[in-house]
Amino acid sequence: MAGNQNRYKLLAGNGNPDLASAIAAYLDRPLTRRTLKQFTDGEIFCSIEENMRGADVFVIQPTCPPVNDNLMELLIIIDTLKRASAERITAVVPYYGYARQEKKDAPREPITARLVADMIEAAGCHRVITMDLHAGAIQGFFDIPIDHLTALSMVAEYFRQSGLERSIVVAPDTGRAKAAEKLAAELGLPMAVIHKHRPVQQQAEVTHIAGELHGLRPIVFEDIVSTGGTLVAGIDAMLQAGAEPDIRIAVTHALLTGNAVERLTRPEVSELVVTDTVPVAPEKHTPKLRVLSVASLLGEAIQRIHDGRSVSALFDPKRRGEA
Amino acid sequence: MAGNQNRYKLLAGNGNPDLASAIAAYLDRPLTRRTLKQFTDGEIFCSIEENMRGADVFVIQPTCPPVNDNLMELLIIIDTLKRASAERITAVVPYYGYARQEKKDAPREPITARLVADMIEAAGCHRVITMDLHAGAIQGFFDIPIDHLTALSMVAEYFRQSGLERSIVVAPDTGRAKAAEKLAAELGLPMAVIHKHRPVQQQAEVTHIAGELHGLRPIVFEDIVSTGGTLVAGIDAMLQAGAEPDIRIAVTHALLTGNAVERLTRPEVSELVVTDTVPVAPEKHTPKLRVLSVASLLGEAIQRIHDGRSVSALFDPKRRGEA
Amino acid sequence: MAGNQNRYKLLAGNGNPDLASAIAAYLDRPLTRRTLKQFTDGEIFCSIEENMRGADVFVIQPTCPPVNDNLMELLIIIDTLKRASAERITAVVPYYGYARQEKKDAPREPITARLVADMIEAAGCHRVITMDLHAGAIQGFFDIPIDHLTALSMVAEYFRQSGLERSIVVAPDTGRAKAAEKLAAELGLPMAVIHKHRPVQQQAEVTHIAGELHGLRPIVFEDIVSTGGTLVAGIDAMLQAGAEPDIRIAVTHALLTGNAVERLTRPEVSELVVTDTVPVAPEKHTPKLRVLSVASLLGEAIQRIHDGRSVSALFDPKRRGEA
Amino acid sequence: MAGNQNRYKLLAGNGNPDLASAIAAYLDRPLTRRTLKQFTDGEIFCSIEENMRGADVFVIQPTCPPVNDNLMELLIIIDTLKRASAERITAVVPYYGYARQEKKDAPREPITARLVADMIEAAGCHRVITMDLHAGAIQGFFDIPIDHLTALSMVAEYFRQSGLERSIVVAPDTGRAKAAEKLAAELGLPMAVIHKHRPVQQQAEVTHIAGELHGLRPIVFEDIVSTGGTLVAGIDAMLQAGAEPDIRIAVTHALLTGNAVERLTRPEVSELVVTDTVPVAPEKHTPKLRVLSVASLLGEAIQRIHDGRSVSALFDPKRRGEA
Amino acid sequence: MAGNQNRYKLLAGNGNPDLASAIAAYLDRPLTRRTLKQFTDGEIFCSIEENMRGADVFVIQPTCPPVNDNLMELLIIIDTLKRASAERITAVVPYYGYARQEKKDAPREPITARLVADMIEAAGCHRVITMDLHAGAIQGFFDIPIDHLTALSMVAEYFRQSGLERSIVVAPDTGRAKAAEKLAAELGLPMAVIHKHRPVQQQAEVTHIAGELHGLRPIVFEDIVSTGGTLVAGIDAMLQAGAEPDIRIAVTHALLTGNAVERLTRPEVSELVVTDTVPVAPEKHTPKLRVLSVASLLGEAIQRIHDGRSVSALFDPKRRGEA
Amino acid sequence: MAGNQNRYKLLAGNGNPDLASAIAAYLDRPLTRRTLKQFTDGEIFCSIEENMRGADVFVIQPTCPPVNDNLMELLIIIDTLKRASAERITAVVPYYGYARQEKKDAPREPITARLVADMIEAAGCHRVITMDLHAGAIQGFFDIPIDHLTALSMVAEYFRQSGLERSIVVAPDTGRAKAAEKLAAELGLPMAVIHKHRPVQQQAEVTHIAGELHGLRPIVFEDIVSTGGTLVAGIDAMLQAGAEPDIRIAVTHALLTGNAVERLTRPEVSELVVTDTVPVAPEKHTPKLRVLSVASLLGEAIQRIHDGRSVSALFDPKRRGEA
Repeated sequence: MAGNQNRYKLLAGNGNPDLASAIAAYLDRPLTRRTLKQFTDGEIFCSIEENMRGADVFVIQPTCPPVNDNLMELLIIIDTLKRASAERITAVVPYYGYARQEKKDAPREPITARLVADMIEAAGCHRVITMDLHAGAIQGFFDIPIDHLTALSMVAEYFRQSGLERSIVVAPDTGRAKAAEKLAAELGLPMAVIHKHRPVQQQAEVTHIAGELHGLRPIVFEDIVSTGGTLVAGIDAMLQAGAEPDIRIAVTHALLTGNAVERLTRPEVSELVVTDTVPVAPEKHTPKLRVLSVASLLGEAIQRIHDGRSVSALFDPKRRGEA
Repeated sequence: MAGNQNRYKLLAGNGNPDLASAIAAYLDRPLTRRTLKQFTDGEIFCSIEENMRGADVFVIQPTCPPVNDNLMELLIIIDTLKRASAERITAVVPYYGYARQEKKDAPREPITARLVADMIEAAGCHRVITMDLHAGAIQGFFDIPIDHLTALSMVAEYFRQSGLERSIVVAPDTGRAKAAEKLAAELGLPMAVIHKHRPVQQQAEVTHIAGELHGLRPIVFEDIVSTGGTLVAGIDAMLQAGAEPDIRIAVTHALLTGNAVERLTRPEVSELVVTDTVPVAPEKHTPKLRVLSVASLLGEAIQRIHDGRSVSALFDPKRRGEA
Repeated sequence: MAGNQNRYKLLAGNGNPDLASAIAAYLDRPLTRRTLKQFTDGEIFCSIEENMRGADVFVIQPTCPPVNDNLMELLIIIDTLKRASAERITAVVPYYGYARQEKKDAPREPITARLVADMIEAAGCHRVITMDLHAGAIQGFFDIPIDHLTALSMVAEYFRQSGLERSIVVAPDTGRAKAAEKLAAELGLPMAVIHKHRPVQQQAEVTHIAGELHGLRPIVFEDIVSTGGTLVAGIDAMLQAGAEPDIRIAVTHALLTGNAVERLTRPEVSELVVTDTVPVAPEKHTPKLRVLSVASLLGEAIQRIHDGRSVSALFDPKRRGEA
Repeated sequence: MAGNQNRYKLLAGNGNPDLASAIAAYLDRPLTRRTLKQFTDGEIFCSIEENMRGADVFVIQPTCPPVNDNLMELLIIIDTLKRASAERITAVVPYYGYARQEKKDAPREPITARLVADMIEAAGCHRVITMDLHAGAIQGFFDIPIDHLTALSMVAEYFRQSGLERSIVVAPDTGRAKAAEKLAAELGLPMAVIHKHRPVQQQAEVTHIAGELHGLRPIVFEDIVSTGGTLVAGIDAMLQAGAEPDIRIAVTHALLTGNAVERLTRPEVSELVVTDTVPVAPEKHTPKLRVLSVASLLGEAIQRIHDGRSVSALFDPKRRGEA
Repeated sequence: MAGNQNRYKLLAGNGNPDLASAIAAYLDRPLTRRTLKQFTDGEIFCSIEENMRGADVFVIQPTCPPVNDNLMELLIIIDTLKRASAERITAVVPYYGYARQEKKDAPREPITARLVADMIEAAGCHRVITMDLHAGAIQGFFDIPIDHLTALSMVAEYFRQSGLERSIVVAPDTGRAKAAEKLAAELGLPMAVIHKHRPVQQQAEVTHIAGELHGLRPIVFEDIVSTGGTLVAGIDAMLQAGAEPDIRIAVTHALLTGNAVERLTRPEVSELVVTDTVPVAPEKHTPKLRVLSVASLLGEAIQRIHDGRSVSALFDPKRRGEA
Repeated sequence: MAGNQNRYKLLAGNGNPDLASAIAAYLDRPLTRRTLKQFTDGEIFCSIEENMRGADVFVIQPTCPPVNDNLMELLIIIDTLKRASAERITAVVPYYGYARQEKKDAPREPITARLVADMIEAAGCHRVITMDLHAGAIQGFFDIPIDHLTALSMVAEYFRQSGLERSIVVAPDTGRAKAAEKLAAELGLPMAVIHKHRPVQQQAEVTHIAGELHGLRPIVFEDIVSTGGTLVAGIDAMLQAGAEPDIRIAVTHALLTGNAVERLTRPEVSELVVTDTVPVAPEKHTPKLRVLSVASLLGEAIQRIHDGRSVSALFDPKRRGEA
C-alpha cells in the first residue's frame, strides 16, 4: 500500500522476446529477471527473481504459435504474480490467439476466444492491452478493462508514403469489408470487396469481386495471415478482374505458416508489410517484406496506463499531450 | 426432482404478446397464468399463479421498445422463477436489444450488449434462444448455452418465390457484407456493398457502392431497422448507381421508429418484408409490408430443446427427423 | 496507479439533474462532461468526454421514475466507467427504486430489490451511497460497502422549529412503527401506530389506530409516497380518532404520482415536507409543500468517502471533525 | 443421472436430534447413517456411511446454540455431500442463527445474517427451508431458492382454542408491529404496540404503549427469545397500563438462555407457548410451557419440495391437494 | 430435460487414444464422432458430429505431454459441450499434468495445479475423475466433485504374484513415504525411505537411506516419472546400501522422457511396471517393461457414476455389488 | 483513496490476545479499539470504534480452540471491515484450524480446509498470513495471496544451541518425513522415519522405524499436537528401538488437549519446545516446556507486507535488507 505505488515493471514471456526488448528500450526500463523454462515433459515453470509486492506489472506475451504453450505461459506468469502480491497485472497481448474462433459458425463448435478471455481473467489478470482483434466484439468477452490498439494508422501512413496513385483498397473477404472501408476513408481511396464461400474452415474459395479493379493497384489489409490461402485466392481473383500486377498487402499479425511468405511474395505482389506483434523468423525476411514495429505504440500505451493518462489520445494527434 | 421432470411451461412477458400467443398455439400449450403490471411509479410487479417447482420454463420476451422496461420485466420474471424453484429457465429473446452496442467504437463507451448478457445470467437464466444477432460474437458474451436462430432461410425462400430475375443482393453497409454474401450464395445471385462513413452513431452518410447495379433489382437484407436513415441513404445511392426502382428490403427486427415505414415504402421500394420478432403496430401495416412469422421456428426450437433433440437440424431439411 | 490517485470526479445521470448540480455546487467541483441520450428506439447511449483512468468517480443517479430507464442508465454509466479504467466507482443513489419489493409477501413473487443490487454489483460498482431505504436489511443485499444516510435528523430539526406543542408522531403503518419510534424519541413526543390490512399490493385499507390521538396534532414520517393512498386512508383514520385537523407529513422520497399532491394537501394537512432525493416537478410546488435539500448531506458524504474520513461522524455533532 | 433420481434422503446434524427424528417419523423414512463428532480440539468431523450419488438430500440443522458449532457442522455436512456427488442439497434450518444481525444499526458493524447466507451458498447448498425469519428481507440474502415457513397459523389456532375473550394482541416492540398486525387480523382482535429505546444491543428499556390495554388479556407473539429481557420489561409495562395479569406469550424460536423460563413464567403470565425449532431442554419444561411441534410442517414441506408440488399451498387449506 | 436423461456418451481427446478405445470397449459403447485437429498455426479446432443436448458426457483426456496442447484441447472440448447443451460434463483425466506444482516451494512461484483446476471449472466442467494425484490435497483445488482412483491395489496385486520373498518397499523420496507405507502395509513388507536434497527443481541429490536394505530386494512405487533422474540416484543409493541387484519399480504415470526407459531398465532393475494412464510409445516397450491397463478401472468408475452407484465400493471387494 | 493510504492498523480477535499484544509491541502500534463479545446465546457481536476507511488492516486471529468460535469471529471481523470500507484486509492466522482435513482419506468425507479457505475469501479477505500449514498445498486452496511462514529456522536455531551431539531427527510419521528431512539438512543430522497405521482418525498405531536409532538422542518436529497420542506411541517405539531416553520434541502449533502435556513430558522426554501461535494455558507451563515466540516473525512480515518489501527475504539473512 505504501512504498511501491509508483513502481511499474515489465516482464516478458517467451512469445516475442525481440518485441519485449524493443518495448523495454522505448521505455528505458529493464525487463524483470525471471526464469521461464519447459521441463522435458513440456511443463512450464516460472520463477521471478525480483520482489513484486505492490508493483504495477505489464506482462508482454503475444499468444502466437506455439499458441497453447504461449497462452499457458501467460497464465502461469499471471498466477505467479498474483501469488507474489503484485498490485496490478496487465497482460500485453499484441496478438490474441484463437481470435478467429469468436462465434459458433456451425452447431457444436466452441467459442474459444471467450474461453481464453475467461482463463486470463480467472488467472488473476486486471487489464489487457491488445491490437487489431479479429472481431471488435471480443472486447466484450472481457469483464476487465481492455485497451484495443490498432496498426491502421501506421499502415496507412506507410502506404501514403509508398504512393497512392491509381490505388484501391480491396477487402480480402466480406468480414474485412469494414476494415477496408476505414483504410479507404483514411487514404481517400475507392474500395472493393472480395467475396467467397468458405465451405470448410480456413480453406477459401474465391468467387466474385464487388467493385471495379481494372487498371488499379490493389492495397489489401488483413488482420491475421496463417497459410495465406485466402489471400492467394484473392490475388488470383484480383488479377483476373484486371488489377495491375502491383499488389500491396499489409498484415497486422503475420503468422505466415508453411510457405506463406513464398506464396505472398509472388511476382504480382510488390510489397508484404507486416508488424512485429508476432516474431517474424529470419528466413522469412525476403526483400519484399517490410516489418513495421509496434514497440513504441505499445510502450507509449504502457506508460500512459501507468500514469493514468488517456490511451485513446495516443491515436489523436491533437490530444497527444492531454492528461 | 421427481414428478415434474416432463413439464414444460411457456410464460410470456409484455414485449410481444401476439408472438407469444402464436408460439403457444403452435405448441398447443397454454401460456402460464401470471400478473405482470407496472405501478403508477413505473415499477414492474410480477406474480405467477401456477406452481413452477421443477418446471422447464420458456420465457418469451423480446427486448424491443420500450427496451428498458422489457428488459427489466424479463429479469424480474427470471428472478421470480428462480425463487419459485423452476428447474430450468430459458429466455426466448427473439430480438436482443442493445445488440448494436457490442464493442467500443470510441473511447469511454460501454459494451451494453455484454452488460445485458451479464444481467440475464446474474438473474438466474440457464439458457437463451435468440435470432439474427447484430454480431455473431454476442453469442460469446454468454457463459450459458445460447441457440442462435436465423430468419435467413425464411427470407430467402420468400424472395425465391417473389422472383429473382435481374436481381442482386446489396449489403446496406460493410458490416452486413457477410450476411449479404450468405443470402447471395443461397439465392445464386451476385452482390454489391454500400460503404459509407458514419461520423455520429446512428446517422449515416453513404459514399460509394462497390459492385455494379446498373439495370438490376436490388435485394437488401438488414438485421435491425430503427429510423431507417441508413437504408434511405442506401436507396438513394443505389438509384444513383443505376439500379432499377424496384428495390426489395427485408428486415429481421423491424423497430421502424418515427416515420421509418413511410420512408422505406417510397415508390422505388416495391416490398418491405419483416418478421414478427418485435410487434409491428397496426398503423404500420401498409400494402407494401409483408410480415413473416417466426412463431413456428421458435416453437419448434422450444419443443426440440425440451426434448433434447437437435436444434441445428431444424435448419437442415435432411436432418429434421434426427434425435 | 500513479498520477491520478487524488482525482475525484462527479458524474450525473439524468435521474435528478438539479440535485446533481446542487451537490457539485456544494463541493465546488464541475460535473464530468458526458453524453447521455436515448435513441428513437429507447436505447440509452453513454459517452464520457474526459479521461477517467485512475479516477475516483461518484455517479449521481436516483432510480426514480422512469425507474427502469434510470436504473439502466446507471448500469450503463458504470459499465462505461469500468471499461474506461476508473479506479473506483461509487453509485450515489439517493432514492433506491424497487426497495419495496425486498421480500416475498406471497409465493412466486420476485425480490427485485436484491436483483437490482446484483445488477449494480455485476456492472462493476465498488460502493453505494443511498438514503432512507425502505428496509434496513437491503444493506445486506450488497456485497460491497454501502453508506446508508438518513433524512431523519433533517426532518426532526424542521419540525422542532415548526413547533411541537400537543404533537404526536404517528406511524402510517406497522412497517413504519420503528421509524416513528426513532423520530418520537428524537423529538420527545408520544407515538401511535396506524394498522391496516393491505389485501393487494399498494392498495391500503386502514383499520385501527393503536394509541390516543384525541386533540393532538399528528406528525407522520413516511419513507416513500407514490399515489398517497395509504396516507390518505391514514388521514381519515386520524381525524376520525379525534386528531386535530393540523396534520404534518414528512416524506423522504416524494414520488407523488397521479394526484398525490392534491390528496395530501387537503385542508386538514398543514404541511407536506419532502426532500429532493427525487425531482419534484414544478407543478407540484404548492404553498403547503416544503422541499428540504439533501445536497449538502450527500456532498459531505462524498467528500468524506474520498478523503477516507468517517461518514457516520457526519450524523454526530461531536464527531464532525474526526478523521 | 439415471437410477437415483427418485431417491431422497434425510440427514440430521446435531442441532436438534429430536426434531430430526420427528420429521423422519412423519415421512416414514430413516435418517441417513453418518458420523458427526468433535475431536478433543473442537474440530468437527463428518463421514457419511451411505452412498449419496445422485440423491436429493435434506439436511436438518437449526443453527441454535452452540450457534457457531452448529453452523460449522451444517457447512461441513454440505461440503461432504457436495464432494460425495449428491444431486441436490437442501438445508432445513428451522431456526436461522444470527438473524438479528441483518442490518447495520451503527457504523462498523457486520451484517452477519448475510455472511451466514453467503457461507451456506459457498459450501454448495442448493436450497434452504427456514421458519419465521427475524426479518423477511433475509430471504433476499440468498441467491438460491428459500422456502420461508411460518408458525403463525399454528400459534393462531392454538390461541383460538385457548379462548379469545377480552384479548388483545400486543407487539413486544415496534419491530414486531407487523407480525402482531397479522396475528390480530387472523384472530379478529385489536392490537397495541410496546415501544422502547434499546440503547445497547439486546438490552431493553420500555417506554410507552401505543394502544389501550385496560382490562384486556394480552397475547404477545415473539419470533426469538434469548434472555427474555425485552419481554419482561414489556410485561411490566403492560401490567402498569392496566392489562389483566393473564398474559399469554408465544415464541417461535425459544432459545430461553439463562433464567428466561423462570422470568417468563412469573405469576402474571398464564402460558408460554413455544415451538421445537430449537431443542427445549427438559429442565425448561415447566407446567406453563406448551411446545407445539413443527415436525409435520417441515416434513410436509420436504415431501412437497421433493415431489415438485407447491409448498405455499400447504398454508392454504383450499389448495392443499394442488399439484 | 425429457428424453435424453439416460444417455451417456464417451468422447476422447487426442491425449491417449488407445486408453479411450479400451475404455469404450470395456463399456461396449462407441466413442462420439468428433473432429479435433490443429491448424498450421497450432490452434486447436473442435467440432462434434452428434447431438449432445441433455447427454451425460465423459471426456477422456489425460494431460500428458504435449501437456499444454492436451490441456487446451480438454478445455476446448468442455466449452464445446457446454455450448452444445450437454447436461453434465465429466473430465476423465487419468494423468493430471502440472500436479507437481501444487505448492510454492520458493517465493514468486506459481501453483499451477490450482490454476489448471480453475481453468477446468471455468470452462464448464461438472466433475473430474483422476488417478494417483501427486498430492492428495489437489482434490481440494476443485470446487466440483472429484473421484480420485488409485492404481495401488493393481500394483500390489502384481507384486504379490511376482513374489515377495526378502522384499522391502522403499520410498524413493520423503514425499512418497506415505505411499510406501500404504503399499508396505498392503503387502505385509518392511519399508525404508530414501531422503535427499533437491537444490534445484527436478534435479535430485540422494544422500541417505533411512532403514535397512542389506540383502533385500527393493520394490519402489513412484507416482510420476519423467527423466527418471531421482530414481536412478535412488537405485545407486540402494545398491550402495547393500540391496540385492533385483530392484522392481512401479510407476503410475510413466512419462519416461529422454532416455528414462534405458536408465530405468539397467541390469540391477528386474522389472519396470507402469500403467497406461499416459501412452507408452512402442519404442519404450522393452522386455523388462510391463504395462497394466487402467481401462477397466476407469470404465467401471464411469459406469457407476452414470448409474449413481458408489465408486469407492469399487475398491472394496465386499462392497462391489452395492448400490 | 486519498488521505489514508499509508495507515495500517492491527486488530485482534479473541483467539490469542497475548500474541496480538506482542505483535503490537514489536510494531510499536496500538491495537484497534473494538468490541468483540458473545451474547448469552453464543452469537458473536463485533463493533469497531475507530474509522477504518481506506485503512490497510491486519486481523490477528489463529483459529485454535474453540475453533468454530474463533473462525466465526474472524469471518465476522472481516465482514465488519469490508462494510466499513477498509482498503485491504489481511487475515493473520498463525494457526490454521482444520488443516488436517485437507483431503478425502475415505469416501464421503469433507475437505474442510478448503471450505475454511472459501469462507475466508467469501467474507472479503484480501490476503492471508499463516505458519507451518499441515500440508503445503493448502496454499493452493486460496485464490488470494498467502504468505506462508515457518518456525523451522527458529526451532533449528534452538536445537543448535541446545546441543546436537549424537542426535538424530526422527519423523513422527511418514507425513512428516519431508519436514524431518529439511530439519535434518539444516542441522546436518541423520534422520529416521516412524511409520504406522492409523485405522481411525487421530488414533495411532506405531509399527516400525525406518532408520537406526540405537544410542542416539531423537529430535522430533511436529506441526500440530492435540492429544499427543501419535507422539506417545512414537516415543515408545523409539525407546524400544534403542534410542537414548533424552528425547526432544518441537511443535509449532501446541494445542495440547487433555493430558497431552503430562504425556509428553514423561521422564524420557527432556524438552518440549513449542511456539505461541496458539495460547499455551498457564497450567501447561511445566519446567520442561519452552515457548518460542513468533511475534517478531509475524510483526516483521506485517511491516514488510505493508511496505511492499519482500517477506521471503525475511528467511534469508543475506536478503534481509532488500526492498
